[in-house]
Amino acid sequence: MTAATAAKAALRSQAIETPSWAYGNSGTRFKVFTQAGVPRSPQEKLDDAARVHEFTGVAPAVALHIPWDRVDDYGALAAHAEKRGLRLGAVNSNVFQDDDYKLGSVTHPDPAVRRKALGHLLECVDIMDATGSRDLKLWFSDGTNYPGQDDIAARQDRLAEALAAVYERLGDGQRMLLEYKLFEPAFYSMDVPDWGTAYAHCLELGPKAQVVVDTGHHAPGTNIEFIVALLLRAGKLGGFDFNSRFYADDDLMAGAADPFQLFRIMYEVVRGGGLGPDIAFMLDQCHNIEPKIPAIIRSVMNVQEATAKALLVDRDALGAAQAEGDVLAAHAVLMDAYDTDVRPLLAELREEMGLDPDPLAAYRRSGWSEHIVAERVGGAQAGWGA
Amino acid sequence: MTAATAAKAALRSQAIETPSWAYGNSGTRFKVFTQAGVPRSPQEKLDDAARVHEFTGVAPAVALHIPWDRVDDYGALAAHAEKRGLRLGAVNSNVFQDDDYKLGSVTHPDPAVRRKALGHLLECVDIMDATGSRDLKLWFSDGTNYPGQDDIAARQDRLAEALAAVYERLGDGQRMLLEYKLFEPAFYSMDVPDWGTAYAHCLELGPKAQVVVDTGHHAPGTNIEFIVALLLRAGKLGGFDFNSRFYADDDLMAGAADPFQLFRIMYEVVRGGGLGPDIAFMLDQCHNIEPKIPAIIRSVMNVQEATAKALLVDRDALGAAQAEGDVLAAHAVLMDAYDTDVRPLLAELREEMGLDPDPLAAYRRSGWSEHIVAERVGGAQAGWGA
Amino acid sequence: MTAATAAKAALRSQAIETPSWAYGNSGTRFKVFTQAGVPRSPQEKLDDAARVHEFTGVAPAVALHIPWDRVDDYGALAAHAEKRGLRLGAVNSNVFQDDDYKLGSVTHPDPAVRRKALGHLLECVDIMDATGSRDLKLWFSDGTNYPGQDDIAARQDRLAEALAAVYERLGDGQRMLLEYKLFEPAFYSMDVPDWGTAYAHCLELGPKAQVVVDTGHHAPGTNIEFIVALLLRAGKLGGFDFNSRFYADDDLMAGAADPFQLFRIMYEVVRGGGLGPDIAFMLDQCHNIEPKIPAIIRSVMNVQEATAKALLVDRDALGAAQAEGDVLAAHAVLMDAYDTDVRPLLAELREEMGLDPDPLAAYRRSGWSEHIVAERVGGAQAGWGA
Amino acid sequence: MTAATAAKAALRSQAIETPSWAYGNSGTRFKVFTQAGVPRSPQEKLDDAARVHEFTGVAPAVALHIPWDRVDDYGALAAHAEKRGLRLGAVNSNVFQDDDYKLGSVTHPDPAVRRKALGHLLECVDIMDATGSRDLKLWFSDGTNYPGQDDIAARQDRLAEALAAVYERLGDGQRMLLEYKLFEPAFYSMDVPDWGTAYAHCLELGPKAQVVVDTGHHAPGTNIEFIVALLLRAGKLGGFDFNSRFYADDDLMAGAADPFQLFRIMYEVVRGGGLGPDIAFMLDQCHNIEPKIPAIIRSVMNVQEATAKALLVDRDALGAAQAEGDVLAAHAVLMDAYDTDVRPLLAELREEMGLDPDPLAAYRRSGWSEHIVAERVGGAQAGWGA
Repeated sequence: MTAATAAKAALRSQAIETPSWAYGNSGTRFKVFTQAGVPRSPQEKLDDAARVHEFTGVAPAVALHIPWDRVDDYGALAAHAEKRGLRLGAVNSNVFQDDDYKLGSVTHPDPAVRRKALGHLLECVDIMDATGSRDLKLWFSDGTNYPGQDDIAARQDRLAEALAAVYERLGDGQRMLLEYKLFEPAFYSMDVPDWGTAYAHCLELGPKAQVVVDTGHHAPGTNIEFIVALLLRAGKLGGFDFNSRFYADDDLMAGAADPFQLFRIMYEVVRGGGLGPDIAFMLDQCHNIEPKIPAIIRSVMNVQEATAKALLVDRDALGAAQAEGDVLAAHAVLMDAYDTDVRPLLAELREEMGLDPDPLAAYRRSGWSEHIVAERVGGAQAGWGA
Repeated sequence: MTAATAAKAALRSQAIETPSWAYGNSGTRFKVFTQAGVPRSPQEKLDDAARVHEFTGVAPAVALHIPWDRVDDYGALAAHAEKRGLRLGAVNSNVFQDDDYKLGSVTHPDPAVRRKALGHLLECVDIMDATGSRDLKLWFSDGTNYPGQDDIAARQDRLAEALAAVYERLGDGQRMLLEYKLFEPAFYSMDVPDWGTAYAHCLELGPKAQVVVDTGHHAPGTNIEFIVALLLRAGKLGGFDFNSRFYADDDLMAGAADPFQLFRIMYEVVRGGGLGPDIAFMLDQCHNIEPKIPAIIRSVMNVQEATAKALLVDRDALGAAQAEGDVLAAHAVLMDAYDTDVRPLLAELREEMGLDPDPLAAYRRSGWSEHIVAERVGGAQAGWGA
Repeated sequence: MTAATAAKAALRSQAIETPSWAYGNSGTRFKVFTQAGVPRSPQEKLDDAARVHEFTGVAPAVALHIPWDRVDDYGALAAHAEKRGLRLGAVNSNVFQDDDYKLGSVTHPDPAVRRKALGHLLECVDIMDATGSRDLKLWFSDGTNYPGQDDIAARQDRLAEALAAVYERLGDGQRMLLEYKLFEPAFYSMDVPDWGTAYAHCLELGPKAQVVVDTGHHAPGTNIEFIVALLLRAGKLGGFDFNSRFYADDDLMAGAADPFQLFRIMYEVVRGGGLGPDIAFMLDQCHNIEPKIPAIIRSVMNVQEATAKALLVDRDALGAAQAEGDVLAAHAVLMDAYDTDVRPLLAELREEMGLDPDPLAAYRRSGWSEHIVAERVGGAQAGWGA
Repeated sequence: MTAATAAKAALRSQAIETPSWAYGNSGTRFKVFTQAGVPRSPQEKLDDAARVHEFTGVAPAVALHIPWDRVDDYGALAAHAEKRGLRLGAVNSNVFQDDDYKLGSVTHPDPAVRRKALGHLLECVDIMDATGSRDLKLWFSDGTNYPGQDDIAARQDRLAEALAAVYERLGDGQRMLLEYKLFEPAFYSMDVPDWGTAYAHCLELGPKAQVVVDTGHHAPGTNIEFIVALLLRAGKLGGFDFNSRFYADDDLMAGAADPFQLFRIMYEVVRGGGLGPDIAFMLDQCHNIEPKIPAIIRSVMNVQEATAKALLVDRDALGAAQAEGDVLAAHAVLMDAYDTDVRPLLAELREEMGLDPDPLAAYRRSGWSEHIVAERVGGAQAGWGA
């Protein structure tokens, strides 16, 4: 089997999960620019996600966000997905948009607020039971804005208590993915600011608790692929939230800001044996100024291209050069794969999968964009707040 | 005259301009937490600002933001201010919240959008004529999110053209203050990302164009007081937007995150002869989770304390140690002033000015907070969007 | 007991360990500027350290660096220290200055180099046996400069293996302090780049392995006091390497660049019960352009002042405000302590301890500086390379 | 003419200047690892540089560093170069390695030191007269480590005075390239920390003064191609010091850390008409752990590849998409060029130029590496200090 054949085999089974909220409106604190044709319901988000999967062939799962995707009947929602060739992916909790959470949710100084937040997290597990989702993704906006505002260590105690309660509630085959973030919306301390904090909590909780790496949530200069390698080595990498950034949590399309970094990350995934179903490869990004569906298709393709390049690394040659301490040769082996134009390989793969070799062109030709602009008139567009 | 007496004389005439929008609601892209008692009109913002001035004695001016503070009769608004011992300060333009500005305002690729944006800027000068404001503060959210999205140099040409048109319109005694910002809301390139860009444009425009330094708008590690010293030396420092930050443009209370930096900045202001009326000392911050009026009082006091310490630097001793190349002695002279507790001096000053020595306690006792919560019921609270 | 009395009691027993290498020459890669009077031997370094302790009263321990402080008879060196009122502190290993370590030491791809490095680490424990030192401080410059150069996860395996061998060798009452550093001298990946990595290894090793926090070794924006609070909560904080920085690992005098940060760190230490002998409070800094002994005295005083302020925080008032979610009040309690000028309190403490209230003036008057310049003529000055 | 043919025509005339010091030893403050075969004289550095040009065909110039490359007869050195198909490039001054420069050179508080530094700068112009070099490259390590250490504005005055004196001395066809750097070796303030400062001085001096952009000298997050676009638009871009970095001024091989950034920079160069002889394309990097000559060849190739991709951007399509505000299409046009594997094109170009298509393999086969290791025995290897 040639390297290209092996790469295609691995790429064929890759699954990239797209987030329901990326199909809705988003923006910055300065302005949310609306777009025509944006979904008005979780079902319409799934309809859009189905297009992404239809043209890329590797985006079969859709992450939900509660309460943004709250529905009366989650079984029906799962069926809606299934009918379109999709499955419901991770359930994302939201304990940051209720007025009660101004000073935190599970780490709030007031036990009543903490109880309320915990209740929401447990409700999310109920939803997982209904949707068949495997992963509960926990991101806490909890933190403080001013030195002295609250007690850092006490907040950790409260966090640990809530996580333990949720962990206890997880059923067989369910996992908790704990996300970390350096800053925003809290600007002095976040309660889970870095991978070390998430790792320490997950370690204490047990095997169903795993760390999720959002590629936009680090301090400048952080070597993200190092973290990926470490978490894989420790069996504690649960998944990714892919997006890209030049400055902070910019939430640009994955691979747009630093494609070399995305390649290095995917190389560590491949090297660490993480390219299977145990790691959730999710997108988490905003399309504030560009049309959403093609931006998501492009992002999926970017992840695919980075994966393809990672799969093409000549691991034997790399290992040999590394063992000899041949710095330039080892670096060159890695760069040789990165410098390769993998678009022809991916076009070939798509044709083998019965897809159009150019997903973006195929989407454009499909008329879906014009369709949703014409059809989705009236009603409230989905966004971060609803 | 002792150092303390001289310091008090300088502090007595200090004027710190508070921003109308800091009295309204604000937040992050994740959530705007509302607060009871928040103003519902520009007039109510002025009523709150009057309390800040009443208790601090050094906050006589209030910056406006158009269209958030749009009224039918600006003369009447100025009279409303004057009746409360205030004056209207800088007029802040807003060319970032209209749907047309998704890809930029004065740098937009479409000339029609550029004309519309320019029209707004010129309208702001009209308002200045009515309010008697001296300063037009220009902040452009213009930029791009993706490499290739637009032509960087062409956008500079468009920017220069718009600035020239506005400059032309300025009357006697009116100035244009050009603000820069590293990122947000644009995440690949901002059209005025740094002081160098603002300086280059202001230099080309002429003496009425000056740079404004927002203390939260720099890359990590930037030495802000260096920029202040340079701009003062070049006669191009027009003013400050004070706030503080740990990470990005966090917009925390001035002096809360790095009081030593604020002191160093104020020292350069004092050293460069900038403590007079030619420099506008403005606050520009958000009070997302803390009550707004006391937070603004605290911020004003923080700027005052930093100024007091800067004024206490023994400049003769400092100069002597610097001339001798005595690193430790020179540093020690500066630190001696910083380490001084200036709160007693400021309490004394306030009593000399007929004020309560403790502005925050006096505000609390005033009952204003309870008053506005009780009175301001119904209507739409002011915020960034209105 | 008043707050001041309690603070003085705690400050009296504080012990700040100074590093032998700070008394020698140092510099940047561009230039090492030598200074007259610099020690030429470990003994002379101790003589200088004795002056620091003599005038501050709180610097009784001196950290060694092997091989820079290699001597034939460590018992004699310990006696030399003891005679001057000092004790020998942490032993710092050095596996970064031998030609063999170009591509790493304990993580080098070549097992022979790894064995050599391990041998040095074990030798350091031998030295600890002789000096009576409690702490082995391990900093590894190991890492890579180029993506692909070596295998990140394999290097972790090698690191774990070496650490386990050293851990095994530790005697009763001996500890291993593992240091982390974001970058330099490796510029793509460091093998222990962050607290999470150090923590994970220490956790696996056992209770004698602890993390050491060098305040200059973090990414921009890192909240160091958060890490301190977490490590204290987990019982894994072994000590500090204090210094200060504006940009990277600048190694400026502790407290010089961000005194507020140092205060916040010391507050978390006090809050977490870490102000006793279990935490090693070490300096690790360079005095490239300023005279070394007074710079070290100043640094010790800076740590002392930050500690004093931390001790003065009204913890009851703070806790009450935090519990009520009163953001401004809680912040104000912390700032009240920070804004206090603690120099009079420390002068009083020194007088109570039989010291001059002004250590720097006392040092200047002592004539030691002139003495060493006159005496230490000829020979090779100590520096990082020897 | 096809795009590929046009690109090859432009690439054929590209000239990348390699720095003499990159052929010598370098390191970090922790350790300089020596390498066998390293040159012991400026002449031997030129011999190595000749190999780089021989195999790449685009590295005809070599930058000198005074005093590291000080010789008695600069005319003879130029002849040595010419005989090997090279020319002498920029003359780099060094006012940072003399003991007198501990607190600065041209900005030192002591006028005697300033005079000495100025004398060196003028000597460099004398050398340019002898070598026929066009460019004087000025990098000042001047700055301060501690707040208060010296007067920021006064240092600017001194800097301006020295620059004016040097400018005055420049002959016809000679230029001054002013470099900026955020930090290191000064850690509080650098006297020329950013492009704005360099630009302001160059503007004041006149047309012979130009800014040089070292790609490793910026704050985290800085958009370097924006600066390039601005300087080109203002006619003030004099040249580049190429290298790459993950953290600070890491001085890794150009294109190794962020090849996408290098491409974006080269695109702005091409777009701004800067790909001619008026801009000096220099390398300035260290090869601390990898063999130097192949590392330099690789770096030259990296710059070439980035240039080739930049030349392949479909500017018509890009301009059309930008004009329409089609974010995704415009971005895609740029990415299409970046994603192209240009190695075949460059191999073709080399063959057309009579070169081996694989410069690194050709260098390896040449036996030069073994030759210098065998021949260059004894003597003092060149490094940063000599």
